[in-house]
Amino acid sequence: MALFHVRMDVEIPRDLDPAVRDETIAREKAYSQQLQRDGKWPHLWRIVGQYSNISIFDVESADELHEILWGLPLFPYMRVEVMPLTRHGSSIR
Amino acid sequence: MALFHVRMDVEIPRDLDPAVRDETIAREKAYSQQLQRDGKWPHLWRIVGQYSNISIFDVESADELHEILWGLPLFPYMRVEVMPLTRHGSSIR
Amino acid sequence: MALFHVRMDVEIPRDLDPAVRDETIAREKAYSQQLQRDGKWPHLWRIVGQYSNISIFDVESADELHEILWGLPLFPYMRVEVMPLTRHGSSIR
Amino acid sequence: MALFHVRMDVEIPRDLDPAVRDETIAREKAYSQQLQRDGKWPHLWRIVGQYSNISIFDVESADELHEILWGLPLFPYMRVEVMPLTRHGSSIR
Amino acid sequence: MALFHVRMDVEIPRDLDPAVRDETIAREKAYSQQLQRDGKWPHLWRIVGQYSNISIFDVESADELHEILWGLPLFPYMRVEVMPLTRHGSSIR
Amino acid sequence: MALFHVRMDVEIPRDLDPAVRDETIAREKAYSQQLQRDGKWPHLWRIVGQYSNISIFDVESADELHEILWGLPLFPYMRVEVMPLTRHGSSIR
Amino acid sequence: MALFHVRMDVEIPRDLDPAVRDETIAREKAYSQQLQRDGKWPHLWRIVGQYSNISIFDVESADELHEILWGLPLFPYMRVEVMPLTRHGSSIR
Amino acid sequence: MALFHVRMDVEIPRDLDPAVRDETIAREKAYSQQLQRDGKWPHLWRIVGQYSNISIFDVESADELHEILWGLPLFPYMRVEVMPLTRHGSSIR
Amino acid sequence: MALFHVRMDVEIPRDLDPAVRDETIAREKAYSQQLQRDGKWPHLWRIVGQYSNISIFDVESADELHEILWGLPLFPYMRVEVMPLTRHGSSIR
Amino acid sequence: MALFHVRMDVEIPRDLDPAVRDETIAREKAYSQQLQRDGKWPHLWRIVGQYSNISIFDVESADELHEILWGLPLFPYMRVEVMPLTRHGSSIR
Repeated sequence: MALFHVRMDVEIPRDLDPAVRDETIAREKAYSQQLQRDGKWPHLWRIVGQYSNISIFDVESADELHEILWGLPLFPYMRVEVMPLTRHGSSIR
Repeated sequence: MALFHVRMDVEIPRDLDPAVRDETIAREKAYSQQLQRDGKWPHLWRIVGQYSNISIFDVESADELHEILWGLPLFPYMRVEVMPLTRHGSSIR
Repeated sequence: MALFHVRMDVEIPRDLDPAVRDETIAREKAYSQQLQRDGKWPHLWRIVGQYSNISIFDVESADELHEILWGLPLFPYMRVEVMPLTRHGSSIR
Repeated sequence: MALFHVRMDVEIPRDLDPAVRDETIAREKAYSQQLQRDGKWPHLWRIVGQYSNISIFDVESADELHEILWGLPLFPYMRVEVMPLTRHGSSIR
Repeated sequence: MALFHVRMDVEIPRDLDPAVRDETIAREKAYSQQLQRDGKWPHLWRIVGQYSNISIFDVESADELHEILWGLPLFPYMRVEVMPLTRHGSSIR
Repeated sequence: MALFHVRMDVEIPRDLDPAVRDETIAREKAYSQQLQRDGKWPHLWRIVGQYSNISIFDVESADELHEILWGLPLFPYMRVEVMPLTRHGSSIR
Repeated sequence: MALFHVRMDVEIPRDLDPAVRDETIAREKAYSQQLQRDGKWPHLWRIVGQYSNISIFDVESADELHEILWGLPLFPYMRVEVMPLTRHGSSIR
Repeated sequence: MALFHVRMDVEIPRDLDPAVRDETIAREKAYSQQLQRDGKWPHLWRIVGQYSNISIFDVESADELHEILWGLPLFPYMRVEVMPLTRHGSSIR
Repeated sequence: MALFHVRMDVEIPRDLDPAVRDETIAREKAYSQQLQRDGKWPHLWRIVGQYSNISIFDVESADELHEILWGLPLFPYMRVEVMPLTRHGSSIR
Repeated sequence: MALFHVRMDVEIPRDLDPAVRDETIAREKAYSQQLQRDGKWPHLWRIVGQYSNISIFDVESADELHEILWGLPLFPYMRVEVMPLTRHGSSIR
């Protein structure tokens, strides 16, 4: 398994059709929650005061992560940063 | 309770006495593991290829977080970045 | 209680309808002043020569701060930076 | 009167004589507290997880601020950033 | 009196109505020249190859500077940086 | 398998004992060449004019990559940047 | 022969006609694959989570590289970074 | 004549011999004041809270400016930024 | 004479009328070539893979350089950086 | 032939033995002048106010450039930036 730290900063264009906007956000939520239920997106936090999140992904491979991120309904309106993680020697887990 | 995302980048000076170095790293590990067992430091990951970690803290307050970070045995050799987190509207937790 | 330092940089799009603009700025002012009267936004200063402010928030939690910031009428047109503060050992307060 | 926002990041050299270090920090504290009592340094906060502070100065002039900062016992070990502030149109004060 | 160093970078939107543009630039010039004649804007230089200037302001206070900058006809199209200045110990003035 | 793009910038301290320096560089070379022969470090290029390289790693996991990088004899003197790669849709491979 | 490391970050304007967009992407793919078959573009990888690639070019000269990059159908929508590479002294190739 | 805007940030090494330090600062002052009297260094201001200055030079040529800067007794301990200036179209001078 | 190093990064807006675009580029070329023939713009190189150039100007003064740059037909679509040059002590010229 | 733009920023450590320093600078000068006479280093300019130069190299290949730069006596004390150049379409050469 492979663990990744991802930061997503969202900036939806102001002139996006409101119906498209709402529908995209709703699809994003469903997409994210399915991956959370599947155990592939174990952590999702909001950064205070930002339209941004910190996510932890636990996937088969970087290839799978790429497919997941590329498929995010809000992907065209995001800046994404990916950092691979590994176990820390002081972790009790 | 208050949730914080912390990144720590460690740079131990090359001329630090090796015994002091080893003792400091050992104290850092014990200090970190006690806080993990107490539930205050629920996640600790190594960033691949870096002498750096990503940590999630779950504490009473920012004041408590400051006391914890300030007390890290390696604190004098770290660059620390703190971001407050909150629940994400799409999180299933 | 939790203390936060927030910098807000405002950039209202030039093509925003002037009536919407004026109404949004008026709502922002009322929203801010209510929070000031409630003691949750104890300091608000303008940075000289910038459409920016420095604010100090004194709230229950980072979650409450997020709700407040997210609800700012000008939030969609702002860049926001948040830093948690704590008491300084040399402060006489 | 003139209001300034100052951020100070302290980095005391590791090889500074410990007695000099302690004495300098003690002088810094006394110097700061005198200015706080005089009303010239009305706010002093610690940034969480940093050897840094956010300060508000309320002085006669930028010249006086310069004298104060230049005279800080820790000034040689600080990075200092100064921003002039003014009243915000939405402030209730 | 208070002395400030200000850098202004101008970027007029390409789609601004040419008549509005010309009229704004003309008002900017008149506004600037009145302040120069009043002694409040003693130096104004163009940076070579840039639509930018370096200005020195000599005003009563940072509050007055803010009023002046905020009132610049081109202010909505500028990025402004402000640094307070003071007398240099080696200056012969 | 997992593919990673790694940039390493080397800065050996000037006061490192020359014998230690030479021995470390020799060990680095042997270590690197063994991994190249094992197929885990398929590409290694020098950036022109820099004491830096661009490397491609083809490993089991990010965990294995971390072990490899952490074990580099020059690791204490390097700045390392890691980016996970995946197949490009236009690649003919 | 000359070896170059190129990073391309693509940002296709949202308001580009979808047919033009699709046709441009298709031409980009054909153009890239022809150069790959010619041996001039030996490596092409996707950066995980980014609309970006890392490419290695193996060409006659920087002049030829410029012609190739300038001719990319997506060139007007790319940010391109070029670094010349050379053989690494530890490479086994 | 040629007009230049120069920012100098001084950082004198802590381990410089105090006598050398004092003598260098004294020579810097004399050197600067001679150039001020000669009309070549018409403005010299301290940036508030920084060991830095903003200087305006009015010299024959960039070559002369280089000779002047290169000859500053504190030059080895300075970071220097140079910007050529020209007359501003709105200047009343 | 005065020597300047100039980098120009061009970004022509996508919605510029194609005829205006072509005419502007043609005027830019003629303007540049006249200055090259006059000896005022002795070097003009393309940066590989960028819509950017490196230019050396050899002019009477910074004032003349400013007039030249300000007059570039593509000036409104450029980012320009200027550095004054002088003779290098190791140059054989 | 291959054309490169190189910027070199020199920072000689203050504690380098003065005889070594002088000898290294002398070797650097001879090395540079030989390459200038060979036509491989056709331009070498000092950046005004900086211990830095702008150089143009005209070499067989990036490999040769790397050998040249790597062999500079001051290389260990330099930060080097390399950009490949090509002919500009508006150049009259």
